[in-house]
Order: sequence, then C-alpha cells, then structure tokens
Amino acid sequence: MTAADYKHRHLLGIEGLYPHEINSLLDLADSYVVQGNQSAPTFDAMNGQTQVNLFFEASTRTRASFELAGLRLGATVINMQSTGSSVSKGETLIDTAVTLNAMRLDVLVVRHQDSGAVKLLADKVNCAVVNAGDGAHEHPTQALLDALTIRRRKGHLDGLEVAICGDVLHSRVARSNIHLLNTMGAHVRCIAPRTLMPSRIEELGVSPYYDMRKGLKDVDIVMMLRVQNERMQGSYIPSVREYFEFFGLDKEKLALAKPDALIMHPGPMNRGVEIDSDVADDVERSVIREQVEMGVAVRQAVLHTLSHNNQVYKQQQEAK
Amino acid sequence: MTAADYKHRHLLGIEGLYPHEINSLLDLADSYVVQGNQSAPTFDAMNGQTQVNLFFEASTRTRASFELAGLRLGATVINMQSTGSSVSKGETLIDTAVTLNAMRLDVLVVRHQDSGAVKLLADKVNCAVVNAGDGAHEHPTQALLDALTIRRRKGHLDGLEVAICGDVLHSRVARSNIHLLNTMGAHVRCIAPRTLMPSRIEELGVSPYYDMRKGLKDVDIVMMLRVQNERMQGSYIPSVREYFEFFGLDKEKLALAKPDALIMHPGPMNRGVEIDSDVADDVERSVIREQVEMGVAVRQAVLHTLSHNNQVYKQQQEAK
Amino acid sequence: MTAADYKHRHLLGIEGLYPHEINSLLDLADSYVVQGNQSAPTFDAMNGQTQVNLFFEASTRTRASFELAGLRLGATVINMQSTGSSVSKGETLIDTAVTLNAMRLDVLVVRHQDSGAVKLLADKVNCAVVNAGDGAHEHPTQALLDALTIRRRKGHLDGLEVAICGDVLHSRVARSNIHLLNTMGAHVRCIAPRTLMPSRIEELGVSPYYDMRKGLKDVDIVMMLRVQNERMQGSYIPSVREYFEFFGLDKEKLALAKPDALIMHPGPMNRGVEIDSDVADDVERSVIREQVEMGVAVRQAVLHTLSHNNQVYKQQQEAK
Repeated sequence: MTAADYKHRHLLGIEGLYPHEINSLLDLADSYVVQGNQSAPTFDAMNGQTQVNLFFEASTRTRASFELAGLRLGATVINMQSTGSSVSKGETLIDTAVTLNAMRLDVLVVRHQDSGAVKLLADKVNCAVVNAGDGAHEHPTQALLDALTIRRRKGHLDGLEVAICGDVLHSRVARSNIHLLNTMGAHVRCIAPRTLMPSRIEELGVSPYYDMRKGLKDVDIVMMLRVQNERMQGSYIPSVREYFEFFGLDKEKLALAKPDALIMHPGPMNRGVEIDSDVADDVERSVIREQVEMGVAVRQAVLHTLSHNNQVYKQQQEAK
Repeated sequence: MTAADYKHRHLLGIEGLYPHEINSLLDLADSYVVQGNQSAPTFDAMNGQTQVNLFFEASTRTRASFELAGLRLGATVINMQSTGSSVSKGETLIDTAVTLNAMRLDVLVVRHQDSGAVKLLADKVNCAVVNAGDGAHEHPTQALLDALTIRRRKGHLDGLEVAICGDVLHSRVARSNIHLLNTMGAHVRCIAPRTLMPSRIEELGVSPYYDMRKGLKDVDIVMMLRVQNERMQGSYIPSVREYFEFFGLDKEKLALAKPDALIMHPGPMNRGVEIDSDVADDVERSVIREQVEMGVAVRQAVLHTLSHNNQVYKQQQEAK
Repeated sequence: MTAADYKHRHLLGIEGLYPHEINSLLDLADSYVVQGNQSAPTFDAMNGQTQVNLFFEASTRTRASFELAGLRLGATVINMQSTGSSVSKGETLIDTAVTLNAMRLDVLVVRHQDSGAVKLLADKVNCAVVNAGDGAHEHPTQALLDALTIRRRKGHLDGLEVAICGDVLHSRVARSNIHLLNTMGAHVRCIAPRTLMPSRIEELGVSPYYDMRKGLKDVDIVMMLRVQNERMQGSYIPSVREYFEFFGLDKEKLALAKPDALIMHPGPMNRGVEIDSDVADDVERSVIREQVEMGVAVRQAVLHTLSHNNQVYKQQQEAK
C-alpha cells in the first residue's frame, strides 16, 4: 500500500492535508490508472465491505464514478438518493446517522447541499466518510483528480501559476483546488466578477483578478468553473452573453496565457457560456477529457485508503 | 437452519402467524446480529438467487435495508421504483406480475400505497413475496424488528404491557405490532385522538385510551407512531402544537410509565411533534437506535427463510 | 459461441442486419431460455466487464431487464438515469460520451427520447452500444424478443402474414419489427388511422390499411401497439372510446384473422384502449406473457454477443 502514511479516517476536505498525504493519494491513484490501461481492473481491497452513496443533491456523474470505484474494489455498494427519502420527510441528519450506523457500513460517500453537513454526519457515524461535495465548502476528490491530471502533464505541481476563473464565491471546486494547490506550492490566482469573488480571498493566499485578460497573463493552468445558476441566488447574474464576453474562455483570451497552458473544467460544461467549444476541444492544451478519466482512479485510491484506515481504526477501538 | 418450522412461502403480514413461527424468525435474526458484531457478515444463503425490491411508495431506509440484507446473503438484487415506471403509465398489478414472473425471481419485496395490493401481487407471481408495507394494512418486518428489540432487552414478550400511541388508524406499523404482541402474549393498549382510533379496536384484543396520561400508566413499553400528514387526509388534523400537548411523548408523560419502560419509534422521527428530543435520546430507556440496528438482521432472517421455503416449494411443484 | 458469425460491435437497430445474424442472436437467446428453465442461470460471459444502463427516458421494465441480463452474465452494472443528472443541466451528448469513456465501460445500454441520439453516442464512445429505444426510430431488442416468441410458436418467420396495428407513426417498436420481419421473409401490414400512418410506408415494403377489419383478414400474427399519448403531440388523437371502436382489438375483429393467429403486445398494455382484456388474456392465442419471458434471454444474448465482439475489436485495435 503506497498510501501507508495517510492516516486519516475521513476525507472531508483538502484543507489541513499535508503534502506527503496528498502525494500518497495521487501515487496510489496513478497506479490504478496504469492498471486500468492494461486490462479491466478488478481488485479486492474492499471485499466484504459495504459502501453507501448518500446523495442529498442530484448527481449522476459523481455518484456513478464512486459506485464504479467501489464495485471495482469488490465492495457491496448501495445508493441512497434524498429524492423521496426520509430526509424529505424531515428527518434530522443525526437520525440519518443512526440509520446508517445500523447498516454497519464501512465507507459512506456523501453529497449535501449545505456546507458542513458532511462533517456533521461524519461526527456521528461509525464508518469512514468521503465528502463528495458539500454546499460551497469542499469537493476534495475533484481537486485530487485535477491535481493528478496536472501532475501527469507537467510532472509537478509546485511553482505553477494557476488561474481559477468564474463563480469562485459559490464554488466548492475552487475552494478545494485553492487548498490543494497552495499546499503543493503552486501559485493561485482567482478571476471573477466582483460579485462572485469571496471577500478576503487574499487570506487564502490567492491573488484576486477582476479582469480576465490580466489574470490569465502567463499562467500555466487555466481552470474554468461551471456557471451554476442554481447557486447564484441573490448575486448579480450577468446575462449569458455578457458573462461570456468578460469571463468566458475563448482563443483570444487564452492567447495571454503561456503557449503550453493547460485548459481545465470540472464538467459538465456550458459550452458558449463559460467556455468556447474551440478551446474546450483544443487537442493540444485541453485536458478536460483526462480530468474525467482520472475520476474513477482517484476515487478508487481514496476508497481504498480510507477503508484500510477505517479497518485499522476499528481494530484499535476493539483492542481498547 | 433454525427457522425450520416456519413453512410459509410469503410474508404478507403478522396476522395468522403462530408463536413458534415468530420465535423461529426472531431466533434466526438474533444469530445474524451476533455474527454481524463479530465481523462484516457475508453469507451465501441466496447465492444465485434474484431479489427484486418493487417500491410503489418512496422509501430509502426500508429499501436500502432490504437491499443490503439480500446482497449480504449473496443474492442478485434489483430495485424497481414506481417513479417513472410502467405503473405510472397505467399498467395493472396483474400485468406487473407477468413482467416479474418473466424475470424468474426468487424473492419479491413490495411496498404499495394500497392495503391488500401486496397480497394481490403474491397471488399472481411465482416467487416468494415479502410485504414491505401496504397502505394501512401491515408492515410485518417492522413488527418483527420491534419484537426482537424488546426481546433482547426484556428477555421475553409475554405479559408485557405495551402502549402504542399516535395515529393508530392509518398505521400499518401499529396493526402489525398489535397482531404480533397479541400472539406472543403481551397486553396492548392503543392511545390516540378519537378521530385517529380505529372503530371497534377492542375486537383486536386491544384496550383503547383517549387520554395519554391514563394510557401510559405502568406500561413496560411506549411505542410512538410517526405523524404522517400524507395519510391523514379527511381526518381531523390537530395543529402540531396541540398534538404535542396531548399526544407527544415528553418527560412528564413518560414519568407515568414504569421506571424501566422502553421508548420506541419506527422512524423517521418528527422531533417536537410526536416525541421530544430529550426522550428520544434518553440513554437508558430509548431503544430507537437498537430498533434500526435490528432492521437488517430481521430482513436477512426473513429473506433467508422465505427463499429457502420457496426453493422447497418449487422442487415439490416440479416433482408433481 | 453460437453467434460466431455476428460481427457487429453495436446493436443500434435491426435495419441492415442479415438473416443469419438475426438467426444467430435468436439461437443464442433460445439457449438462455432453456437453461433458465432448468435452474437459476448464472454465467460468466461478462465477468470483470462493466455495463452502464443510461436512460434519458423513464423505463423500469426495460432497464430492469437489461440490468438482470447483465448481472446474470457476471457483469458489474451501473444505472444512470437522466432525472436529476448532468444531462438536465445542459450537458451535450458528446460530453456525456467523454464521461462514459472515462469509466472504461464494456457495454453501454442507452434509451433516449430523440431518434438518432444513440447512434450519435455510439460514434463517440469506446465501448459496445445497445439501443434500448431511441425516439421513434428503433427498439431492436423488442423486435428480437417478438421474433423469438413467434419462432418458438410457429417454428419459422418466413411467409407469415403479420399485422402491426396502432400508432405506427410514432412507434420504434413498429419500425424495428418491420425491418426484422421483412428481412426474415414475413409479409407485414400496418393498420392505423391516417394521421398515425407514416407517409410512404410502402417504401418499407409494407401494405398500409386504414380499416382494421380489412387489415386483419387472414393474418397469422396480430401485433398491437401501445397508445402513447406522450408521443402523439400534434397528431389527431381520437377519444379513447373512438380509438377502441375503430382500432382496438376485440373478439369480433380478431375473428377475421386466422383461427390460430397469435396476439402480441409489447406492454405495458392499456386494457380497454388498444386491446380488450378478453383478447389479451386469451389462453390459446395471446403470447403477451411469453413475449415478456423472452426479454431477459434476448438481452442476455445481445449483451453476450456484443461484449464478445467488443473484446475482439479492442484486441485488434491494440495489435495495430
């Protein structure tokens, strides 16, 4: 096990992880990518273990990615969607935790619309918990797969100039990436309209830019964020056309970045809103396809590691 | 197989079961609890068998509990939700049965909003059927897990004074528990507003109480029912505040029960409506958490037993 | 492998298949039916392979049938419903394909509301694709299971007189059956109101009838189509009573067909709309129950064959 020195029981966010912990997860994920290329991978790291994917927010892509990762590790996987569930009947998160504990889970994957809800659940359940996105807080596996994509292309993360562009204020993807890139020694710039930039973003060690042309100057990586109308309640929402004009990535703006800058997007893309199709499909520089490809491998690495740590934890608890 | 003398092919309700049949199911469930405590249980009682969970009513908890129970017994498990299914296109239950038979199932788990619908399906399909709740009729696995919880705490069921409190009229949980507790020699009282008490409840061998303080006097077990607004159509619905005042369980009313009375609730709870958080979380007397824990074990016992009986039944049919 | 001469990588439609290809799929399906009768079949033709059921249109029956077929062949099966998925957030089919490729699938089963959408996806993904119904275009596994049902009853397909009756215009079931029956040497008549008959239907080698009594004269097979209000937008929709009067199958109209004519319906039936219950449940002539029974076997044959061909294809690609 290459992730031997990653000793956490939960993955609730990137904030607080050490560089060697991030590296060991990326190394393990890398090994799953290689094996996946050779043949259909089936492993048994989670044989006899139970994984529940508990999604309070609709998501087919991320849920399927975690489901596949668990099944390929040999786990028994159950999906629980909030749609039509007890949760909509007013059950508290604490009572949900009681129900989950009764099922004797090993790993719980949770997505929730509220920041902090996953932590609240993790405090109450007896199993390992993976945050699959909570409100505007964190989405750690997305940041890990982004990092793996960059590392495989650039060979390293430290010293890179990275621009994160779009609705930074509401983006858990941005937040997790800022923590990861800072930790690994990259330099992060955030580009957003003033209404979509977090106040005191500098305190996160990030340089804010309100003009995309200035923000993209000489960067190594351009990370575009998805425009999510559902999260922009109460903010100033520019028209799609205005948004694209000022903050959409097209060839002309991209020309300001380094010639070998990578183009990234967490998907699903709104083509013509935050990113132009020409740029999204750029054969040389767009790594959007590779980002998705890293998804299952990164989730296998995270599930493998946490379920291992959780087994160790349980044995220690029983020994007491 | 400890449940050797339980020879039914379906579990449609508790009504009509003999004490030794209930006991053999509880004994088998108990053995699954014990095994579950020692290590992650994987068994093969349903290897090569197919289980379908057919839910016409939304339920994440009960469906997940049955799914996990089947998977842990080695079954192939498929979920079919009525949402967006053929059923919403107007298919009759009989045509649904034809479809299910074509899939060569071994066990069918059904929840339906209409009392009697599960029986109707059971008459038409070639496999074992478990009622996971049909209208206001029965919810037998809930009564079995409640009984297991009580038996593990009190050592027996006979002679206990049990109060079932709330919307008895619309509650399949109440109905299944009344049948089970009566059969096992407990004494059942029902506490409800007049509009939510079934007429002629005495014929079920139950004592009705319209005043909670009188009904709780010296009982061994307090079973609270969930307030289900969706089922109270046409009835007098008191305000939440009034309901809690007269029929909500709080410390003051609980003081009338025996000092070691157990507090039970089938979940999900409406805290502050039918039960106070202080009481729900009472470390000594609340067994709500244990109830949930018995869920998977009881369902494993039921699935194990019925799939076994069904195999025997099919062999007998083929021998003819 | 009995389907050794079927070398396609996808099954997007029946159109273009050769008689020997259809026969080899039916032969393989037949063998799954026989094995299924003897014992619960579990096979390993898809061991270690991943199947995704991607449904943009609600369907419990067809999805469950494909899921069961894949699981019984040993595949890892994941369901992705469009409800609440990225697709509803405006993702393009091409970006969906990128996501699917990243999951390293072996077989993708797709249902989509738009004709041609499955082909579009198939052009972009790296795995075998099965069309589980696309708009008003094709539904090839339905035609195959219909053909298997007829072949098992009549012994052959060639020379049979087949009447397809109902909303032919919007029916992918009709279209796939017309291609299959024509290819196998049967004679197809279509019976429909003028507004629900495709223009230039004769070019498909089909005889149109606007009077059901004339169309049913001396046919061997009566295939009724489901009335699908959701697909008849913009067309003249007769009242249910009028529709049944002119185009519903009842005893009186059926008497015009051959005495041993088979009655078929793809399900779910609207009893009393397009078919009378007397006729639907006719013990001698209705094979509606058998049609459903052929569903899983036909899907096993298709999945088995395509996943095999796909493995061969991938090996050839790697050898280059």
